[in-house]
Amino acid sequence: MIKHLRSAADLDAATATLILDTAAEMAALSGREVKKLPALRGRTVVNLFYEDSTRTRISFEAAAKRLSADVINFSAKGSSVSKGESLKDTALTLQAMGADAVVIRHPASGAPHRLANWVEGSVVNAGDGTHEHPTQALLDAYTMRSRLGRLDGLRVAIVGDVLHSRVARSNVLLLTTLGAQVTVVGPPTLIPLNVAAALSASTKVSYDLDSVIPDSDVVMMLRVQTERMQDSYFPSSREYSRRYGLDLRRMKQMQEHAIVMHPGPMNRGMEIAPEVADSPRSTIVEQVANGVSVRMAVLYLLLGGK
Amino acid sequence: MIKHLRSAADLDAATATLILDTAAEMAALSGREVKKLPALRGRTVVNLFYEDSTRTRISFEAAAKRLSADVINFSAKGSSVSKGESLKDTALTLQAMGADAVVIRHPASGAPHRLANWVEGSVVNAGDGTHEHPTQALLDAYTMRSRLGRLDGLRVAIVGDVLHSRVARSNVLLLTTLGAQVTVVGPPTLIPLNVAAALSASTKVSYDLDSVIPDSDVVMMLRVQTERMQDSYFPSSREYSRRYGLDLRRMKQMQEHAIVMHPGPMNRGMEIAPEVADSPRSTIVEQVANGVSVRMAVLYLLLGGK
Amino acid sequence: MIKHLRSAADLDAATATLILDTAAEMAALSGREVKKLPALRGRTVVNLFYEDSTRTRISFEAAAKRLSADVINFSAKGSSVSKGESLKDTALTLQAMGADAVVIRHPASGAPHRLANWVEGSVVNAGDGTHEHPTQALLDAYTMRSRLGRLDGLRVAIVGDVLHSRVARSNVLLLTTLGAQVTVVGPPTLIPLNVAAALSASTKVSYDLDSVIPDSDVVMMLRVQTERMQDSYFPSSREYSRRYGLDLRRMKQMQEHAIVMHPGPMNRGMEIAPEVADSPRSTIVEQVANGVSVRMAVLYLLLGGK
Repeated sequence: MIKHLRSAADLDAATATLILDTAAEMAALSGREVKKLPALRGRTVVNLFYEDSTRTRISFEAAAKRLSADVINFSAKGSSVSKGESLKDTALTLQAMGADAVVIRHPASGAPHRLANWVEGSVVNAGDGTHEHPTQALLDAYTMRSRLGRLDGLRVAIVGDVLHSRVARSNVLLLTTLGAQVTVVGPPTLIPLNVAAALSASTKVSYDLDSVIPDSDVVMMLRVQTERMQDSYFPSSREYSRRYGLDLRRMKQMQEHAIVMHPGPMNRGMEIAPEVADSPRSTIVEQVANGVSVRMAVLYLLLGGK
Repeated sequence: MIKHLRSAADLDAATATLILDTAAEMAALSGREVKKLPALRGRTVVNLFYEDSTRTRISFEAAAKRLSADVINFSAKGSSVSKGESLKDTALTLQAMGADAVVIRHPASGAPHRLANWVEGSVVNAGDGTHEHPTQALLDAYTMRSRLGRLDGLRVAIVGDVLHSRVARSNVLLLTTLGAQVTVVGPPTLIPLNVAAALSASTKVSYDLDSVIPDSDVVMMLRVQTERMQDSYFPSSREYSRRYGLDLRRMKQMQEHAIVMHPGPMNRGMEIAPEVADSPRSTIVEQVANGVSVRMAVLYLLLGGK
Repeated sequence: MIKHLRSAADLDAATATLILDTAAEMAALSGREVKKLPALRGRTVVNLFYEDSTRTRISFEAAAKRLSADVINFSAKGSSVSKGESLKDTALTLQAMGADAVVIRHPASGAPHRLANWVEGSVVNAGDGTHEHPTQALLDAYTMRSRLGRLDGLRVAIVGDVLHSRVARSNVLLLTTLGAQVTVVGPPTLIPLNVAAALSASTKVSYDLDSVIPDSDVVMMLRVQTERMQDSYFPSSREYSRRYGLDLRRMKQMQEHAIVMHPGPMNRGMEIAPEVADSPRSTIVEQVANGVSVRMAVLYLLLGGK
C-alpha cells in the first residue's frame, strides 16, 4: 500500500481499485447497526486546513471518527501560522504531537508533497491550490462505478473551468488510470492549448457541450467560482450559463442511463439548473455520502488499520 | 415520541413532562461515578450554527458527548455557506454524511422547519431568529419545577424585550402547556398590541413591573441586546434599567419563596443588578447545569437511545 | 497534590519532580501500542481560549484525548464573551456544565487565579498576559532533564524579551525551584532594573550574550513578537538580531554538550538562525513532543486519574 495520497498520480489501477472496494465494504458496514468500527482506535488524525472548506473537513472528520480515531482540527486562521510560522515548523509540531495522518487543504499547489518530507505520518491531500483533490476523484469514481457498474470504457465529460480546477485534474488522472475515456469541455480560454497538451494522450478536448452530451455516460459539471467571473478567462455569466450550463433541454439529450455529477457546492442556475440538480439522474447527494466511505477507506488503508 | 423539536408547540403536556422526567434521571446518573452513558454510541450529532453561540453549542456538545455520541461542529462562518450554498444543499450534505441529529441555530425564523423537510435525522431548534428556542424553555421549566416543586398554577413573569425574544416565545408556549400562568412585562413598544393578541388567551400583559413582582413565583429577566438599544423600540438604557431592571429594591418585593431567572449571558447593571444575579434566589447557574441534562434528555428521546 | 496550576510558583520541588516523572511514564506508555489510556474516561476538559494559540490548544487537546477525556473547545472569539459576558459568568457556565478541568489562555495577567475562585474543577494556566505559562516551563525542564540528565546545578541562559515573556517568568521560577542557575540576557530596556530586582536572588542578569554562552548548558531563545519591534523597548530588528540572535558563530562558542531551546513558533533569521534551529543541538521538536507528555501528566495528577 502507498503511504501518502498527495496526487491521483500516486494511484495505480490496482491501488485505486483496492480503495474503491474497501470503500464499498465500509459503506456496507456503516449501514448496519455497527456504526463505529474500532480499526483506528488510538490513532490521531489532524485536519490541517489553510483554506476554509467545512464540507471536506467534516467529511474527513466523520470518516476518521467512524473508525474510532481521535480527530484534531487545526484551522490555520488565527493560528501561529498567522504569526508567520512556516509550513515546515507546523509540520514538525504536528509530527512531534504524534499525528498518524495529516489531512491538508492548502492554497499553494504542491504543499502536500512538501509536507510529506517533514512528517512520519501519512499525508492526505484534501485540495492544494489549482493542483489536485484526489479523494474527490476517488469518490467520483466510486459513484460512477456504483451507478453504472464499471469504469473501464466509460465516457466521461468534465465541463467548466478546467484550467483552475483541481477536481478536473485529479479526475482526469484517476479516470484515465482506471480505463475511462475523458473529454474536457469548456470555453477555449479555460482549456488553453498548453493545458490540453498536458492532458493524457487519451483525453479529448471539446469547446462544444452540445456535441459531447449525447455520447457521454457521465456529465460532470465543475463549480464556477463566481469570484473568477471577473477574469478575462470567462465569458459573461449569462453567456457562460447559456453555452456551458447544464439545463433541462441539454439533460434531455443525454442517454437514458447517463448520470449528472457535481462536486458541490453548486451554483444553482449558473452551471447547473435546479431541476437538473434535483433530478433522478443527479448523483450529487450520493457523492457526498460516498465521500465519507471513500475517506474511511483511504485512512484505513494508509494507516494500516486492523 | 416526536421526531423533531422545532418549536415548543411540538410538545404536548405528556411529552414535555416525559422530557423533564428523563432530564431528572440524566442529572441523577451524571452526578454519580458513571459520567458517560453509552446510549448514543455510534450516533452522530451535528451542531449546525449559522450564528455564534458558544454557550448553547457547548451545552449541546457536552450533552451529546455524555451520551457517547460523536459530535461534529459545523460553523457556517467561512464554510461553503459563505460561498452561497443554500440551506437545502447543506442539509442534503449533512444527510448524506449520516447525521442522526442536526442541532441548528439560524438567524432566520423557521429555518429548522425547512431543514426538517430535507433530512432524515432529527432536527433540534437551538434558536431561530426571533422565533423560538425550545430547549431553553425546557431547561427553564425544569429549573422552576426543581426549585418550586410544580409547574401547574405557577405564576411566571417574563420581563423585557418580549417582541424580539425567542426565549420569551418558547417559554410562553411551553409554560402554558404545562399549566403555568404567564404574565409578560415590558415597555409598550416591546409588547405591541398585535404581539399581545397573538399570545395564548391565558397569558397576561403588563407594562408595570412593580405591580407584577409581588404576585410572581418566578421573575424571568430577558437579556437586553444592547445593540437594539439604538432602536426606537427602546427607552434610553438608563430609563429602561430604572423601569424594567431587577434591582435589590424590587427583589425585596418578591415573595419569600420566589425565584429569579435569566437565560444568560447577563448584562449586569442593565436588566439585572449584580447583587440580584448573585443572590440565593437566582437560579442562573442552575439553569446552565440543567441545560445539559435537558439536552441529554431531548437527544436521547428523539434518537431513541437505549 | 495541588489542585490548580496557575503559576510555576504553585509547584514546590517535590511536586514539580512528580510531574516530570509522571510525564516520563506517559511518554513511555504512549510510545507503545497502548496509545490511549483510560485514566480520564468520562471527565471533561474545557479549553477556554481568549487568545488564539492553536499550538498550545491542540497540545492540551491531544493530551486530554490520549487520557480518554472529553474535550470541549471554547474560543472566546465570537462567543457570548464578545457580547460582554464577564469571565465570572463564563466560569459559572463552565462550572455548571460540569467541567472537571479548565485550561485557560487569557490576555490579562492573573485571569487563571480569578477563575480558580469561581469553579470547582481544576484550573490550568495556558498563558496569561505577560505573566506566566507554567506548562511551558515544565516541558522545558523535562526536555533539559531528558537531554542533560539533571536540573540541579544546570546553567541556563534565557535570552530576549524577558520583560514581556510569560515563558521566561515561569521558567525562572520553576528552574530556580529545581536547583538550576538561571541567567536572563537581553537589551537593558527589556530587563529593566525593577524586573531584575524582582527575580530570585540566585538569578543573574546580563546584557551581553557572547559572555554568557560559553558558560551555559542551555541557551533558551525567546520568541521576538515582531509587532513589539515598533516599541521603544527594542533596538532595530537588524540590531536586535546582531546582538541577541543565536547564529552559527555564536552556537560554535557553546560547550559540546550544551543545547538550544525555543518555545516556538520561531522567527527564523530573527532571534534564531535557520541552521541553528535545525542543528542537532536544537531541542525544538522534542519540546513540542514533550509538551503533550507533560500536559498529560498535569491533567492526570490534577484530576486524580486512575
